[in-house]
Amino acid sequence: MGKTITEKIFSMASGKDVKSGEYVFAKIDRAMIHDITGPLAVKAFREIAGENGKVWDSSKIIMAFDHQAPADSVVAAENQKMLRIFAGEQNILNYDIKEGIAHQIMVEKGHVLPGMLVVGADSHTCMYGALGAFSTGIGSTDMGAVFALGKLWFKVPETIRFEVNGTLPHRVYSKDIVLKIIGMIGADGANYKAAEFAGTTIEKMEMSQRFTITNMAIEMGAKTGIIEPDAETERYLRNIGVEGKLEDWEWLRSDEDSDYFRRIELDVSDLEPQVALPHSVDNVKPVSEVEGIKADQVFIGSCTNGRYGDLKIAAEILEGEQVASGTRLIVIPASRSIYMKALREGLIDTFVDAGAVVEFPSCGPCMGGSFGLIAGGETSISTSNRNFIGRQGSPEGRVYLVSPATAAATAIYGQITDPRKV
Amino acid sequence: MGKTITEKIFSMASGKDVKSGEYVFAKIDRAMIHDITGPLAVKAFREIAGENGKVWDSSKIIMAFDHQAPADSVVAAENQKMLRIFAGEQNILNYDIKEGIAHQIMVEKGHVLPGMLVVGADSHTCMYGALGAFSTGIGSTDMGAVFALGKLWFKVPETIRFEVNGTLPHRVYSKDIVLKIIGMIGADGANYKAAEFAGTTIEKMEMSQRFTITNMAIEMGAKTGIIEPDAETERYLRNIGVEGKLEDWEWLRSDEDSDYFRRIELDVSDLEPQVALPHSVDNVKPVSEVEGIKADQVFIGSCTNGRYGDLKIAAEILEGEQVASGTRLIVIPASRSIYMKALREGLIDTFVDAGAVVEFPSCGPCMGGSFGLIAGGETSISTSNRNFIGRQGSPEGRVYLVSPATAAATAIYGQITDPRKV
Repeated sequence: MGKTITEKIFSMASGKDVKSGEYVFAKIDRAMIHDITGPLAVKAFREIAGENGKVWDSSKIIMAFDHQAPADSVVAAENQKMLRIFAGEQNILNYDIKEGIAHQIMVEKGHVLPGMLVVGADSHTCMYGALGAFSTGIGSTDMGAVFALGKLWFKVPETIRFEVNGTLPHRVYSKDIVLKIIGMIGADGANYKAAEFAGTTIEKMEMSQRFTITNMAIEMGAKTGIIEPDAETERYLRNIGVEGKLEDWEWLRSDEDSDYFRRIELDVSDLEPQVALPHSVDNVKPVSEVEGIKADQVFIGSCTNGRYGDLKIAAEILEGEQVASGTRLIVIPASRSIYMKALREGLIDTFVDAGAVVEFPSCGPCMGGSFGLIAGGETSISTSNRNFIGRQGSPEGRVYLVSPATAAATAIYGQITDPRKV
Repeated sequence: MGKTITEKIFSMASGKDVKSGEYVFAKIDRAMIHDITGPLAVKAFREIAGENGKVWDSSKIIMAFDHQAPADSVVAAENQKMLRIFAGEQNILNYDIKEGIAHQIMVEKGHVLPGMLVVGADSHTCMYGALGAFSTGIGSTDMGAVFALGKLWFKVPETIRFEVNGTLPHRVYSKDIVLKIIGMIGADGANYKAAEFAGTTIEKMEMSQRFTITNMAIEMGAKTGIIEPDAETERYLRNIGVEGKLEDWEWLRSDEDSDYFRRIELDVSDLEPQVALPHSVDNVKPVSEVEGIKADQVFIGSCTNGRYGDLKIAAEILEGEQVASGTRLIVIPASRSIYMKALREGLIDTFVDAGAVVEFPSCGPCMGGSFGLIAGGETSISTSNRNFIGRQGSPEGRVYLVSPATAAATAIYGQITDPRKV
């Protein structure tokens, strides 16, 4: 019996030949904390290692400020100050408030390479698996242990392999695929599994779109989303400047005869744009069934859909159009480099001309903490990843999850709109 | 004995010939509320006029969301929702979250004309006096009465006339003049007076720079800052598209033999860049005496110094430079139209290239509420108008007020820096 890419990564990380279901004490290749989870991780680390303890390997830890950036309270300001001091003392790379969303930074700055075992103190860490790594979110206390030891206990996950085939129709994207899958299998449909995505649709998909799929693996309960590295992976890594490092990469693929927990096939040739309705990510319907719902606010951004490709799709639809009266459109590029590219390419102009508010890279309204919160009775049509009660403000508000194309079309008409019609 | 421009405006607004010291019940030409003070004003109005009462003249009321925009809490979101409904019911013009700072909107959208009596539920309403209007901040309860009646009681203020003469040295600006004046006469030096600014320096000054001076009149206790309308006033108004309305303007000037409370002369030919030190606006020193103080954060923006001219000055200094490591630079254009011009003219590029965070128009860190707060022990070098304890975050933080030029130079060196040296 062969091995999945997940089993191969854990075998490497633990130094022994392991299969799913086994417990391993595995070496961590990269560890990420952000401004919300970082302070607790540092506290946990200090309890283990003492006030003067040093982290196991400062070159493998990355810090980023994205959830409350710039600081939205005195507490946030104090937390960030403490983290900056910690980063300085420990010689840890800190991406401060000007850099953008941690998850995007991790992949676009070359911190994640195929075959790595990566942990982050944030649930959407699963995104990096699109690069052929095993990447998962852990709690801040576990992160404290990782800082001290560089290792962590895992149960090697079984794998659900999603075979996605067919050519996506016009204005249907990877967000629609992942929403469709979550709707099919449910928010707990892949609990503690590795969600492996394959098939001709994935093979032909740019990395920007792949990240959207693996980002939302946690929304079906998966430990990670993962995609076997291929030519597109190499193109992406070379494009971001990971040159001459090819020899360091582990170019792992799942064996044909892997012992998958389950294989699920999906043909997306006739897929409609999908919408996750309040208040759960698996409450998914095709856009045709929910058209016409009023949009008080539209949000295009987040680690799920704030990449240049996403903004480009939205800008093409918004070009020369106006955001509907009574609707607020907030656009936030996921990182500084995406913001700069969008600026140079005229996308920011397009958004502002259309009547959008364009904020500097951060998590923004996604988690309803910093800004862009909605009131009771209001709706947010959002390209982000969660629509739980109160996720973007009032518990009486309603959040609908969509692709950037559906969000852009919705902004123009002020109600949920099928992007194939605009 | 002649009359000041202030006495002339109150004579017009009250329909009788009045002098300073008299009490008048005066007609209001424009009334402004924003997202923080608006809800209280609406509440007060409803208590006077009842739930179904109509405002005295909806065409004279302007609403803008700037302090918590986009909404930074559920309470803010609920307040904004309520205000939108009120604006809709009453047919009031509402500048929603995408438009920028209320004060800037009031002047650049042509809501304020020479000779008007304008009130706003915000202390820096005094800014509009640069257009030859009498404009002052009032409480939300008074604003409720204005909404109902369109009139308000005033004691006609006496006038202190500041005669500012001389050519400003290189990299010294109107912010330095007003800081110098406040330092001279103190934070209560013009209590309940109209602060009238005249002299050759003011005459040669663009409106963008004049607004900075009248904006800070409240920081010396003045009821308004005011500048007699002149050719520059007309140029500004025509430029923003107030065409064909010249016949509506009251082109009032103070009579030569006006009964001023006091005349103060200032020659600015040798003025240094000025800095207001913590924790009061009148704690003013020349930059040469405070150079070298570490800058954790630099803020360029606000109703005081977030105009295109301000951003241009800062961009010229930051062009090709990098913000110092360990210093955060936050730049916020004061309004949507300024943002768009800065975008088109490449200023946003310059700021981002230099390492700044550029946020969409709003009050931003100025009042330490929404974002950009500082931690205890941190400093903010800010182009805004107040540096009271806790104004921009922690009560243990320290805020220094400077011009955009001094702020930009400071960002490059990470410490308070004389802009004449860069």
